[in-house]
Amino acid sequence: MDPATKKKVLRTFTYGLYAVSCTDKGEVNGFTANWLTQVSFEPPLIAVSVENSAKSLPMILHSGKFTVNVLRSGQRELAGALGKSAIKHPDIFLKITSAHTESQYPILPEALSWVACEVRSSTPAGDSTL
Amino acid sequence: MDPATKKKVLRTFTYGLYAVSCTDKGEVNGFTANWLTQVSFEPPLIAVSVENSAKSLPMILHSGKFTVNVLRSGQRELAGALGKSAIKHPDIFLKITSAHTESQYPILPEALSWVACEVRSSTPAGDSTL
Repeated sequence: MDPATKKKVLRTFTYGLYAVSCTDKGEVNGFTANWLTQVSFEPPLIAVSVENSAKSLPMILHSGKFTVNVLRSGQRELAGALGKSAIKHPDIFLKITSAHTESQYPILPEALSWVACEVRSSTPAGDSTL
Repeated sequence: MDPATKKKVLRTFTYGLYAVSCTDKGEVNGFTANWLTQVSFEPPLIAVSVENSAKSLPMILHSGKFTVNVLRSGQRELAGALGKSAIKHPDIFLKITSAHTESQYPILPEALSWVACEVRSSTPAGDSTL
């Protein structure tokens, strides 16, 4: 496929601005995520694509938990600061305790909203894992 | 989870306006899809969530092919007309012949762009199939 055409077509796809955060073995990490969508109403499920090289991937698969922080349109800079690899300043995430699970989910307090997620299944998807 | 809160949070998620079309055994079908995201650069992969009750689902799984038609923001009405269930007017889809696969993909000529897709894998996701 012609790379320029491919790029042009894929630019017509919508994407959101999210930060996915996780904690495992006392370590907090996070990354910006664009490839995320709701996939089911009942039960409520989302799918998020995580690069196989991401430090967060094994953390999420091990802990079975992650938080989706939905960013506002004005938070593109914050998303850029988070970058796609390991967080150098884990203090930007606050940890909250979920009343339901008694487990800890790190959140970005500046986010528009956040969703505490549990991993139901994972499947390989090219250079990423869903 | 409080249903009102759930709804409010999920509304902060972005979604696109797509029509997925398919053909199998001489029949053409399609449905509007909101839950669709790119998931991999290399190879280029997308994930689309299809309701388990959709008539198109077994057609896509059998033919292994489908087309993603990306709609413009002004085409919400067209999306509504397609609805989520079987198409009553299959003539709104044109069939094109892909030079690569010699297979037929139905397209919506009014769409902003379209992508001919082959099914690489499918996985159950609650009330839908990814």
